[in-house]
Amino acid sequence: MAGKKIAGVLGATGSVGQRFILLLANHPTFELKVLGASSRSAGKKYVDATTWKQTDLMPESVQDIIVSECKAEAFKDCDIVFSGLDADYAGPIEKEFKEAGLAVVSNAKNYRREDDVPLVVPIVNPEHLDIVANKIETAKKEGKPRPGFIVCISNCSTAGLVAPLKPLVDAFGPIDALTTTTLQAISGAGFSPGVPGIDILDNIIPYIGGEEDKMEWETKKILGKLSDDKTHVQLLTSDEMKVSAQCNRVAVSDGHTECISLRFKNRPAPSVEQVKKVLRNYICDAYKLGCHSAPRQTIHVLEQNDRPQPRLDRNRDAGYGVSVGRIREDPLLDFKMVVLSHNTIIGAAGSGVLIAEILAARNLI
Amino acid sequence: MAGKKIAGVLGATGSVGQRFILLLANHPTFELKVLGASSRSAGKKYVDATTWKQTDLMPESVQDIIVSECKAEAFKDCDIVFSGLDADYAGPIEKEFKEAGLAVVSNAKNYRREDDVPLVVPIVNPEHLDIVANKIETAKKEGKPRPGFIVCISNCSTAGLVAPLKPLVDAFGPIDALTTTTLQAISGAGFSPGVPGIDILDNIIPYIGGEEDKMEWETKKILGKLSDDKTHVQLLTSDEMKVSAQCNRVAVSDGHTECISLRFKNRPAPSVEQVKKVLRNYICDAYKLGCHSAPRQTIHVLEQNDRPQPRLDRNRDAGYGVSVGRIREDPLLDFKMVVLSHNTIIGAAGSGVLIAEILAARNLI
Amino acid sequence: MAGKKIAGVLGATGSVGQRFILLLANHPTFELKVLGASSRSAGKKYVDATTWKQTDLMPESVQDIIVSECKAEAFKDCDIVFSGLDADYAGPIEKEFKEAGLAVVSNAKNYRREDDVPLVVPIVNPEHLDIVANKIETAKKEGKPRPGFIVCISNCSTAGLVAPLKPLVDAFGPIDALTTTTLQAISGAGFSPGVPGIDILDNIIPYIGGEEDKMEWETKKILGKLSDDKTHVQLLTSDEMKVSAQCNRVAVSDGHTECISLRFKNRPAPSVEQVKKVLRNYICDAYKLGCHSAPRQTIHVLEQNDRPQPRLDRNRDAGYGVSVGRIREDPLLDFKMVVLSHNTIIGAAGSGVLIAEILAARNLI
Amino acid sequence: MAGKKIAGVLGATGSVGQRFILLLANHPTFELKVLGASSRSAGKKYVDATTWKQTDLMPESVQDIIVSECKAEAFKDCDIVFSGLDADYAGPIEKEFKEAGLAVVSNAKNYRREDDVPLVVPIVNPEHLDIVANKIETAKKEGKPRPGFIVCISNCSTAGLVAPLKPLVDAFGPIDALTTTTLQAISGAGFSPGVPGIDILDNIIPYIGGEEDKMEWETKKILGKLSDDKTHVQLLTSDEMKVSAQCNRVAVSDGHTECISLRFKNRPAPSVEQVKKVLRNYICDAYKLGCHSAPRQTIHVLEQNDRPQPRLDRNRDAGYGVSVGRIREDPLLDFKMVVLSHNTIIGAAGSGVLIAEILAARNLI
Repeated sequence: MAGKKIAGVLGATGSVGQRFILLLANHPTFELKVLGASSRSAGKKYVDATTWKQTDLMPESVQDIIVSECKAEAFKDCDIVFSGLDADYAGPIEKEFKEAGLAVVSNAKNYRREDDVPLVVPIVNPEHLDIVANKIETAKKEGKPRPGFIVCISNCSTAGLVAPLKPLVDAFGPIDALTTTTLQAISGAGFSPGVPGIDILDNIIPYIGGEEDKMEWETKKILGKLSDDKTHVQLLTSDEMKVSAQCNRVAVSDGHTECISLRFKNRPAPSVEQVKKVLRNYICDAYKLGCHSAPRQTIHVLEQNDRPQPRLDRNRDAGYGVSVGRIREDPLLDFKMVVLSHNTIIGAAGSGVLIAEILAARNLI
Repeated sequence: MAGKKIAGVLGATGSVGQRFILLLANHPTFELKVLGASSRSAGKKYVDATTWKQTDLMPESVQDIIVSECKAEAFKDCDIVFSGLDADYAGPIEKEFKEAGLAVVSNAKNYRREDDVPLVVPIVNPEHLDIVANKIETAKKEGKPRPGFIVCISNCSTAGLVAPLKPLVDAFGPIDALTTTTLQAISGAGFSPGVPGIDILDNIIPYIGGEEDKMEWETKKILGKLSDDKTHVQLLTSDEMKVSAQCNRVAVSDGHTECISLRFKNRPAPSVEQVKKVLRNYICDAYKLGCHSAPRQTIHVLEQNDRPQPRLDRNRDAGYGVSVGRIREDPLLDFKMVVLSHNTIIGAAGSGVLIAEILAARNLI
Repeated sequence: MAGKKIAGVLGATGSVGQRFILLLANHPTFELKVLGASSRSAGKKYVDATTWKQTDLMPESVQDIIVSECKAEAFKDCDIVFSGLDADYAGPIEKEFKEAGLAVVSNAKNYRREDDVPLVVPIVNPEHLDIVANKIETAKKEGKPRPGFIVCISNCSTAGLVAPLKPLVDAFGPIDALTTTTLQAISGAGFSPGVPGIDILDNIIPYIGGEEDKMEWETKKILGKLSDDKTHVQLLTSDEMKVSAQCNRVAVSDGHTECISLRFKNRPAPSVEQVKKVLRNYICDAYKLGCHSAPRQTIHVLEQNDRPQPRLDRNRDAGYGVSVGRIREDPLLDFKMVVLSHNTIIGAAGSGVLIAEILAARNLI
Repeated sequence: MAGKKIAGVLGATGSVGQRFILLLANHPTFELKVLGASSRSAGKKYVDATTWKQTDLMPESVQDIIVSECKAEAFKDCDIVFSGLDADYAGPIEKEFKEAGLAVVSNAKNYRREDDVPLVVPIVNPEHLDIVANKIETAKKEGKPRPGFIVCISNCSTAGLVAPLKPLVDAFGPIDALTTTTLQAISGAGFSPGVPGIDILDNIIPYIGGEEDKMEWETKKILGKLSDDKTHVQLLTSDEMKVSAQCNRVAVSDGHTECISLRFKNRPAPSVEQVKKVLRNYICDAYKLGCHSAPRQTIHVLEQNDRPQPRLDRNRDAGYGVSVGRIREDPLLDFKMVVLSHNTIIGAAGSGVLIAEILAARNLI
């Protein structure tokens, strides 16, 4: 265990918290020691405080941990704190943690739009963590104590969307128009109560509150460039990139499917084969850094015309890889394609763990 | 029964054929007398030849009809023949029927692209039936016998798509860009075997063979104008209208959901309120003609932000009405919205029956 | 409207309440005038107070009714009050209504085990309403005002179970052993939140709290005999009838399937053909009384070996008929068979309405 | 690879065959070298001949194997042949293989009822393989060549049923009455086409052809005793054990749930706690033999009252463990409980692999 970073989880009894726990069990870099939940759960053993809802069994190593309240004091020995808190509670708690000097990687939406908070999909824009590096360095120069910080995980459906866009932009220049229609899994809605069964059986719900706005906005931050002074990200403007999202909930347990189309700014546009080649050859920085959870193949380009499918493809590279299929020309924009990503792995808790692995590899925690 | 038109159904044991039978039972205009199927079924009572798969029970009136082979001779007394044949068989059979002077309304795709065959969504472009009227009149002038003809029902997903477009084009001028991503029900795939359960449970299939091409092409025919001599339809060109479709199969029994966005050619574009008003006020010609199955409300504009939903809205106006919700501005084109239509009613057999009602009302059969 | 009985609904915004409203719209015997709900809803128009979740649209006639609180005073003009209240609230409210002289037909479980409360499946044991008749008659003799009363609807899964048992007991004598394993629809769990989607998609929940005990107990009351003085029902003892239930929730929207097996006390047992004949010939008293909702065919005996199926058979006789299939000999008891009933019609609100129709036909309201 | 047994798979392109291939990839005991399929596939690379439908990817090691026809000649170097053939083809092919001296472990039903063919659930009755050992020994004594043989895997629903019965019978003596109502997954039906989606969505099919008879018969063979001369199994008679099965297909991908009840012959019956203890303490022989795939915990006794559930519990011990929950007294027999088993692992291909591991450990191949 020597040398492992000490980790804590906020919101440990909830859906995202349970996922963090599964991903952190037997992790080579982190040792999970502190679990925070509501005062109703605090003081109980984790196994008694939790209705476990994962298909993998609860790791034995966490069963007897006594649940703490979500106070910075209880997490003071943690090198990294993963927050699976609901947005209703995350605001003041994460702020307190940051101000207490703790490093927080959060799945909540509360601070995603803060100027100096990196919004990171770890297989896409880990360079935005330079904001954190810059803060630490500045404090060091100023002789101040190491500062706390928050890094935000993106919305689950944004993560899948931007994964193939990044290598395309790197290779072919800006995308100036982008549409996505999502078919989103129900696990993303948590389970208290999440999506009622009677609402989703033999049905579709063509609306997810706030989701379309999140996708349209977050895409412009994640694909934006760092400011020269590394203090914030410069959002793409609507002139630079138009994004339109339509979001649906469907009867799928895990795995968000997105039908996207896009147009490059530069003419002539690349060919379908060029697009496929760039996607296939993309190796994410996290993999180059040797991060434990980084996907060996970041983007899986599938050639069968009926793929990707959530049930068959969501677990590629343990849910850290993104699958893209049906890449073809679009009568309106340049290309259309189908993107599939695992919403609770690369779209939520898994992203958080991989971000922390990058932070550790860069000695930022 | 006096005065009822005599009707026949081709492909009577199949999925579409069963729907025709349900819709024609106790119909005020038609009396179903002839049922055609493969030679394997011919000679048997319908009740013995058929694996009935509808949620409504098999009408008693058809149970004892002896199934015929699909030969024009057996249907010679029919005023109208509804074809639910598979595309693999429909070609020569429907041709023989037409050449024998019979009136055929077909759900098969085989003749949809023929120049002189109307492709009709009865709540959208019944005026294309003028091609039939013109043929009959011409034959009359020339002293020839009344000619047979084929009218084609559109693809199921096309029907839902074009329903709201028609009144919008009438009110605001041409639509020059249109995208649709579909979430299509499995009943549209028939049941021999249709979509396997293991492929669709907890899953999405992001591909339906030929469907995207059909939607993109058929839309341009259905929204096209009749030639001045009423002999054919002038397709919209790709310059006039760009259409892009992405089609998915989902775990829904009945009801196709489509997330569409569109741009008008004329500037300024109308407001959201103007769009809603035009859709709400649209009364289809079939209703004005007093057709039995015509929807009282052609387009249902829903204001709740999580509607339309297949399970809750597919049966509006007995499946002949189309529901539209979430009408809002689109960052890329002008508007986006969600369209829901019943794929086996207005998207297939129901359209056929309503087309026949229009033909009867116009004395074309 | 002249001569119609005035009806009210308690718990009108909930799942059961909405079903009562649908069934009472355009009813020939009842006119729905009063809707009661929680104080949060009281004072609002029904259309504004309610999240409508039915596949049929909200009847226009109720949309503008101002919701009342659940106080007897507000319902004082009602000839009949239907209660769709949750068990958490039903106890004191229904008691107050009864004591105020009102006639209550309740779907809640609270009073089912009261000695003098009839527990009625209207297609099975309407004669237990003699308890009500007796009370009214007694009060009349004693010169007292007409008394209020409660009649309880059985548990949804009990209703389907006892439907075929009654005619069999009448024909062949007591059943002394009975097992049932249920596959129950999720609509029975209501929708606040009911069964979470993530719990039921690609899954089974082999437990429904309290359900097995209800089925085992209620069956013995419903099949029990009235006491000679018509004041209560004599429960069957465990010696007279052993009942064993195993209850499961499955991914079906409406319709409870039950695999049952049973043994008659008398030897020799009847033949399969005799059993089928008795079930087919059974005509329930409610039908003989001419009740509007009574099924023309009470028990549908299906011969295809893969029926009944919920999606195909749940709506027989508008959900008031019960389907029985696969009647065959059992290696352990005498017979096994599959029973399907519509859990929200004959298993809940529909039973309530049919009970009220019987009460009206018998001049008990 | 030195020392690995050479394995072949018959019916390699089908559903069961694909499962065999997944389970045999990277197996410590077996090296998969020969794949047999229909003449339509023979001569092609496996990757080209197959529509792969598993959630795990096709192992690279089999992709380039040239598919053989199902002739013994092509498998002559195999130490063990796994048959995933359809019953329509398995009869003569497996016979040919056996007569050619090959060892066949078959998932097909064709030879299950043969007197001298062991029908084995490897976590239940591996001692029935003594029939094979006896044959080999006899041939040896007689100076004949080592004989071929067939071992049959049980029906998928039988496997789950008998798993908890075996330790109970060992501890408490014979079970003389047993009922099971199954809720079976659709993966068990294969995929050519298997269960149609439209038949299983929002539905139950209360019938699986031949399944009930198989369960009732196979249980009596698997729980039967070897004859003293080890040439055959003595079936339990109907007097010794009455078994009644009711089988249903439900919308679950993997995992058969069974609601069972049972009665012991001996009085007094054990207590619930005694039953649980025996099940918990059961260690199957395959585990004692050190077989690679043998479950560490054969029977998982779950205490939460809503477990086991297919989605949450089917993968315990990689699908080789069986879960039992809700063990409670039964008003009719002695106990009722819910049993869950993975139908394609312990219920099919996985059983086959574990049987072969036992054969190898016993030097019977």
